Formats: sequence, structure tokens, C-alpha cells
Amino acid sequence: MNKKLSQIYNFGAGPACLPQEVLAQIRHDIPDWYQGISVMELSHRLPVVTALTQSVETDLRQLLAIPSEFAVLFMHGGARAQFAAIPLNLLDEARVADYLISGTWSALACKEAQKYGQINCVATSQEENYRRLPPRADWKIDKHASYFHYTDNETIHGIEFAHPPVVADKWLVSDMTSNLMTKPIDFTRFGLIYASAQKNLGIAGLTVVIVRKALLGKAHPWTPATLNYSEYYHSHSLYNTPAVFCWYVLGLILKWAKAQGGLEVLAQHCQQKAALLYQVIDNSDFYQPYTHFDRSRINIPFRLPSVELETLFLEKADSMGLKQLKGHQLLGGCRASLYNAMPIAGVQQLVEFMQFFQKRYG
Amino acid sequence: MNKKLSQIYNFGAGPACLPQEVLAQIRHDIPDWYQGISVMELSHRLPVVTALTQSVETDLRQLLAIPSEFAVLFMHGGARAQFAAIPLNLLDEARVADYLISGTWSALACKEAQKYGQINCVATSQEENYRRLPPRADWKIDKHASYFHYTDNETIHGIEFAHPPVVADKWLVSDMTSNLMTKPIDFTRFGLIYASAQKNLGIAGLTVVIVRKALLGKAHPWTPATLNYSEYYHSHSLYNTPAVFCWYVLGLILKWAKAQGGLEVLAQHCQQKAALLYQVIDNSDFYQPYTHFDRSRINIPFRLPSVELETLFLEKADSMGLKQLKGHQLLGGCRASLYNAMPIAGVQQLVEFMQFFQKRYG
Repeated sequence: MNKKLSQIYNFGAGPACLPQEVLAQIRHDIPDWYQGISVMELSHRLPVVTALTQSVETDLRQLLAIPSEFAVLFMHGGARAQFAAIPLNLLDEARVADYLISGTWSALACKEAQKYGQINCVATSQEENYRRLPPRADWKIDKHASYFHYTDNETIHGIEFAHPPVVADKWLVSDMTSNLMTKPIDFTRFGLIYASAQKNLGIAGLTVVIVRKALLGKAHPWTPATLNYSEYYHSHSLYNTPAVFCWYVLGLILKWAKAQGGLEVLAQHCQQKAALLYQVIDNSDFYQPYTHFDRSRINIPFRLPSVELETLFLEKADSMGLKQLKGHQLLGGCRASLYNAMPIAGVQQLVEFMQFFQKRYG
Repeated sequence: MNKKLSQIYNFGAGPACLPQEVLAQIRHDIPDWYQGISVMELSHRLPVVTALTQSVETDLRQLLAIPSEFAVLFMHGGARAQFAAIPLNLLDEARVADYLISGTWSALACKEAQKYGQINCVATSQEENYRRLPPRADWKIDKHASYFHYTDNETIHGIEFAHPPVVADKWLVSDMTSNLMTKPIDFTRFGLIYASAQKNLGIAGLTVVIVRKALLGKAHPWTPATLNYSEYYHSHSLYNTPAVFCWYVLGLILKWAKAQGGLEVLAQHCQQKAALLYQVIDNSDFYQPYTHFDRSRINIPFRLPSVELETLFLEKADSMGLKQLKGHQLLGGCRASLYNAMPIAGVQQLVEFMQFFQKRYG
């Protein structure tokens, strides 16, 4: 152990690793995607480009089994633009919404929404430093709320919903930026699901919004057109020049995901990778998990006995080819992000290294 | 003539051609930009990525000679997001702004701004189908206006300002999406200049905003954070995950532009290319320019005597390797876009082909 690996494994939380096959295809396509021109250089109004964008929507709908009563929108920028777009598009006249706070990202979503309405904090686990989901018994639902917002997976604190929350008579709105495409979704109770691309859907600059068509058409008059869901729905997300290259990369990711065997297989891999890592962490006094409750399959923060050991761990891991394991600055320590593009072999290398490191320095 | 060229020339209006050298560099960098990882897969918080983003800002400031009293922001999405961001960020309490309408894009900018204030249409050339700039004598300035918005180059109608408009006691706000980096700018009277990337600055998904620092800090409380200039200024445009890849491509474009000799040389090339094409059009009864007034150096729409001849022209040009010459659907006919990345040799091939085509079918 402790020798340089033949392959680099990038455990960064995002922008994150892409599948090797996808990178190779991007490289292959660059000089000549269509008639001697790269995909970055073509108008989004050309039939060959609209065929691409349509096929991406078709593939995404198929992979996630998105029901026909949902629109699929491809929008500019990241999930944070949606933090404003959601209340601007979805608030009813009473302008009330429920937000559940289970980590940094749901707190930020709530803060932005407060600009546009009367936002009810259903519950928060902030006082416990987000070491678990707020217990269901403590939730205070507002019966006037237009929707119920929650973050399915918190990237920083590594807190994930095993199942969508159960809230009566209210559409769920969920930020799935870091775990869309890692498990099947029952859309029945969802009004809207959104995810920026740079975790499991490719590269930064694009956000997928899956929204119930019945919720469209009531955007506040002040909604910027580029954040207006109806504009994107009616134009097939070609309201303005889209981030064509990001869209193309998403297309490659979807084909890759299908070739892996589809959503069930991706979910299994995800489970398997998380189990491998948690097993090492939980069977050790050396590695401390951030929490034992509601733990994420995707982003796994952990600490070592001292900051000095953490520095050494990160240094040695990096020099072997196990990259970007540094934790988020809020929590310090280490974090391994296990998105779809991380191969099981990468996690095997990581846990072997962790065992070696513990023996050597523990 | 009429034989396949050894090189493809892409005259599309945007997303548009990239310099060959830039494409080669992108391809080179893909498998390993930093420590075996591509630039698309790295966190924007890594020192190596923030060093990249800082160097892009430095290079842009240097190339355009941007004075220090201006902030340079790198924002998500296209110029249309700015159509909302500008009034949301810049309107004073009276909420009045002047908009000059000289084509489709300035009309759309005006329409979006009307959501947020009392927008004064200074003048419009719409009744003349935008065949010239509205004559200066007809302009009706509102003395209460917070700023004066105009579109420096209209991509569809091919109408360009030779010099910035002269308006007393009012900051100019200019959409330079299609001609930023094609001529030197005297920033003295400007409050804000913006340009989306997919013409002269790389690929779609990024917009550069150059804004006077003194104008920051008065955004309307409803401004979405991802459209708030102050948020981007104070975070060095790392408020949220940026479109890292677009930013990287802009960096390559800037290095390429410097290697060409800088802004003066690019401006000369631009003039030279436009002169070559206008000469053929103006010395012919066969090719009809859209107008004789205020003509763009960048986007040049023209017609042939019949739709049948236009179809044949586009077909033959395409088969030779002269691509994407089809006009915008509003105007029909043909359009050649001569952004910085279009080599003079490409325009020479185009005019040779036009002369051949006229002889053969004229």
C-alpha cells in the first residue's frame, strides 16, 4: 500500500468526477461533432442541436421514469438560482411556504425564499449542528403553505432522506442536486425536483428542473424571464441560448448511466460504495463519522484523531492518487463524495488506504 | 472554385466559431488539466481554480484596459438574464430608465426592464425595420432616468454604433454581447457593459459584466442573489459554483487574443474582414445589403435575387466548407458573422465564392 495508483480517483464534492468514458467521448468529439464543427460552436436553433436537446430530455425521462404530467426544464446556472425561482414561480396568493432545515443548503434555500414571501421554518436541526434530520414529531406545518421544501441530501453535513418526507395535502419541492440519479423516485407527492449538474449530471452551468405542469403559469410578474418556468416550458428550454456544452455532457452521462444498467443498478452501486466506506469508519476508533443518524450514501464526512493526522492523511492519499478528500471548511477533516461516476474500485482503494493508514499511524 | 476547402469556416451568429488553437488546447487539457483531473471536475474553491479565475479577470482587464473603478463580474447564463439584472440592480428610487431601440435585442431588453420600472423608450427605428439607428435629433431623454441603455451591435439586423451615444449626465449601459473585444472602449461615460460569452468570449453559459463600483449596493430587495451584482463583486464571482469550464475557455480566448497582438490588432482585423465582404456586396446588383446605414462590422445580413438562389447559395457554400451562412428567420436570406475567431482567410474564401456564384448564377 501507499504506492501511486495507476488511476486517479477524485472524491471532490463538486464540480465532481466524470466517468472516464464520458471524458474520452468529449475529447473525441471536440474537433468534429457535426460537419467539422465542435458542439460548442453551433447555434441552439440548428436541427442537429435541437435533436440533441430533445434526446437528452427523452433519455432523462426514461431513466428517471418521469411521468408525463411533469415538465422537464434545462435552465442556466446552479441550484442557487432556483432558490429564488421556486418561490417566484410557485407561491400562491397567500405567499406562504414551508421549509425544512436539515443543513447548510436547505438553510440557504430558506433564506433566499424569505425575500419573496412568508416562509415557515417547519423545523431545524441547526442546534444539533445538523447531525440528524429534524425529528418528524417536531415539524410545524403551515396549512396555508403553497409547497413544502426540503433538501434530499445535504452535501456538507452528509445528511440524507432515506424516503421523501410525508406531508399531507402539500406538494413536495426537493433539492436533489447531490443525489438525483442515485435512486428511483416515486413522483406521486412531488411538485418539483431540481438538481444542478455538477454532481451526478455532468458539469457546472446547467440545472435540471422537473416540475408538475399544473403548477406552471402563476409566476410573480417580477420573475426574471430567465427564471420563469413557463418561458422555459413553452420554448423547450430554448428561451435563450442555453449552455449547449453542459447539455451535451449531460446527454453523454445519461447514455453512460443507461449502459451501466439504469437507475436500479446505479442505486445498488451507490449503496455498495457507501457500505464499504461506513464499514471501515464504524469498525474503527480511529475514523470518526460526523454522525450515526440519517447518513448520506453520497457525501461522507469523517474526522481523524487530530488535525495533524488529517493533514498527513490527506497528503498521503493525494500522493497515491486519492484526490480531493479534504472536508468542507465548515466541518474540517475529510469528506468522500461517492457520486455515480466514482467506480467501486475507487472506494475499494480508499478503504484499503484507510486501513493501511490506521495501522501505520493509529 | 466550388471545391471543398481544406478547412471549415463557421459563419454562425452564435454560439460561434472558436479559434483553432483554443480548440486544440481544450482537447489537450481534457484528460489532465491539474494532477490528472480535467478542469471540468474541480471545485471552484481549490487554489488552482481560483488562480485561474483571477488570471482571467487580470487578462480581461489588461486587454480591454478596464479602469480600476470598475468591477468585473463573471455571471451565469446569457445576456438575457442581465435584461432583468440591470434594472433590478441599477434603478434609483424614481425607478426610471432610458432605453434606445435599434433592433430585436434592444427591444427585448426594454421589454424585460418594463417589469421593474417606468421605462422610457428614447427612440426606436422599428418602423423602418431597424434599417438604421434612430436619428439623434429624435431622441427623447428622460431627465429622471437612472441610466441610458443601448445595444452596441444588433446581431440580427446588423446595426452597430460607430461611437457610443452622447448623452449628458447619464451613465451609459451597453449590451456588447456581439462586439466586445472587437474595438477599444473609452469607459469614461459607461456605467455598465455586458456581454455573454458565446460570440467573442468563448462558449455559452457565462456573461461578463463590467460595472462601475459606485453603482453597486442599491439592488432592489427582490433581486435574486444570483443576479445581484454586489454578491458577485464581494465574492469575486464565486458566490455559487460558477460555470468553470466556460470561464476556462474564456481564459484561453484571452491568451489567444493577446497573442494576436491585442485589441488594436483585433479591431483592424475586424475592419478588414467587414470591408472585404461589404466591397463584394456593394459592388454587385446580385447581393443586396440589408441597409446602407450604421452597418455592423460583425454581423452582415444580405439577400440574393430570389429565395431559390439563396437556397442554392447556402447549399453550395455549405458543401464547400463555408458553414452556417443562413440568415436569421426574421430577415431570411444570408448572414455572415465575422467574430474575432473568424480568420481573414475565411472571409477571403467567402468573397471568392460569392464572386464565383454571382458569375455562374447571376
